[in-house]
Amino acid sequence: MITSKDNEQLKTIRKLQDRRWRDKLGLFVAEGEDLVEAGWQPEFVLRAGEDVEPDLLADVSALGSGTRVIGVYRQHWSEPGGRLSVYLHGVGDPGNVGAIVRTAHALADGPVVLGPGCADPWSPKAVRASMGSIFARPPARGEPVGNLLALDPSAERELGEVPAEPPLVVCLGAEREGLPEGIGGERARIPIDGPESLNVAAAAAIVLYELRNRMARHG
Amino acid sequence: MITSKDNEQLKTIRKLQDRRWRDKLGLFVAEGEDLVEAGWQPEFVLRAGEDVEPDLLADVSALGSGTRVIGVYRQHWSEPGGRLSVYLHGVGDPGNVGAIVRTAHALADGPVVLGPGCADPWSPKAVRASMGSIFARPPARGEPVGNLLALDPSAERELGEVPAEPPLVVCLGAEREGLPEGIGGERARIPIDGPESLNVAAAAAIVLYELRNRMARHG
Repeated sequence: MITSKDNEQLKTIRKLQDRRWRDKLGLFVAEGEDLVEAGWQPEFVLRAGEDVEPDLLADVSALGSGTRVIGVYRQHWSEPGGRLSVYLHGVGDPGNVGAIVRTAHALADGPVVLGPGCADPWSPKAVRASMGSIFARPPARGEPVGNLLALDPSAERELGEVPAEPPLVVCLGAEREGLPEGIGGERARIPIDGPESLNVAAAAAIVLYELRNRMARHG
Repeated sequence: MITSKDNEQLKTIRKLQDRRWRDKLGLFVAEGEDLVEAGWQPEFVLRAGEDVEPDLLADVSALGSGTRVIGVYRQHWSEPGGRLSVYLHGVGDPGNVGAIVRTAHALADGPVVLGPGCADPWSPKAVRASMGSIFARPPARGEPVGNLLALDPSAERELGEVPAEPPLVVCLGAEREGLPEGIGGERARIPIDGPESLNVAAAAAIVLYELRNRMARHG
């Protein structure tokens, strides 16, 4: 039973709240029973009351009190690919990145590919928002490869009008800045009313649902 | 210029972090220039460096540092209605409630109706996640009214197979518990792969997109 906050495993967990340490060590933290159950082989797992005093575990939790179990895992990255996948550019909110990893797991067969300016998918918030999908479908890095379909609120064509030829990569940008000009391929918008835009995770869900259906219908 | 943390307006803002005080006073807080710009007539607005010392404003922020402006507003509730609207039951996460308010503003003409067990839509996190849609389309309370379509991962029929007759209310439950048996009407599921479910805000986006399109096609 760990009874000191100077324990090396607790120190590692504390470090892994920081992206620089996650990048350097190639590790990340998952908190909570459901995530640890969904996880691959851990480096180590600490359970409150079994391996560590509950207060000490709570102290290193990144997500607030009530965490009874924390696992530390090695990062694995996928390769870009699949008939349908997602490319994110400048999506800086970790909750959105994690939510899109989860949605893509349910609706696409390829990974989420992370371009420049995206939140770290291995951050505690992103891992939590992925609800275990970060383990089942780890993200990829680099350039989108395939037929690119850029979501662009100012595009002329609506989502329902563009071709859905696999391998298809849905490209989504930051909510304010959008995608850079350099991201080529088709552009389409989701038809909406009112002056408001959609949240990037909501937009990703809609696009993947629509394209998955279209691909299923056309074989 | 406010220079004391005992100022009555700062005290009010601090109280409004607590749901009981929000309910009692019928007020809520919006933080940040974009939200305050989107807001209706405020009870009062405090700007850092103009009305209040920046550190004192940061101290009463519910969303962390960097807030330069905070507005306090009276809560307004809508009445249920519209050709297409959403009913939430037991959706306890304020970020999801706010995100669904935003998505419904873009894709539906009716308000989000909040049933039992939902997060307070006037909480700082929900207001932030709504990105101003809480002002443009305030939520409603009470029972869903109209043709009910319950989203249910165990339903036999897929979303594409159910009728979309207005007035239509999409009913969504908590991610784990789902909807209670008492919520009648059609049941449908979103076809997904893998063992994972969809986040409730992602599911809401997909259902509203699909039904909005179907209603538009059929007049």
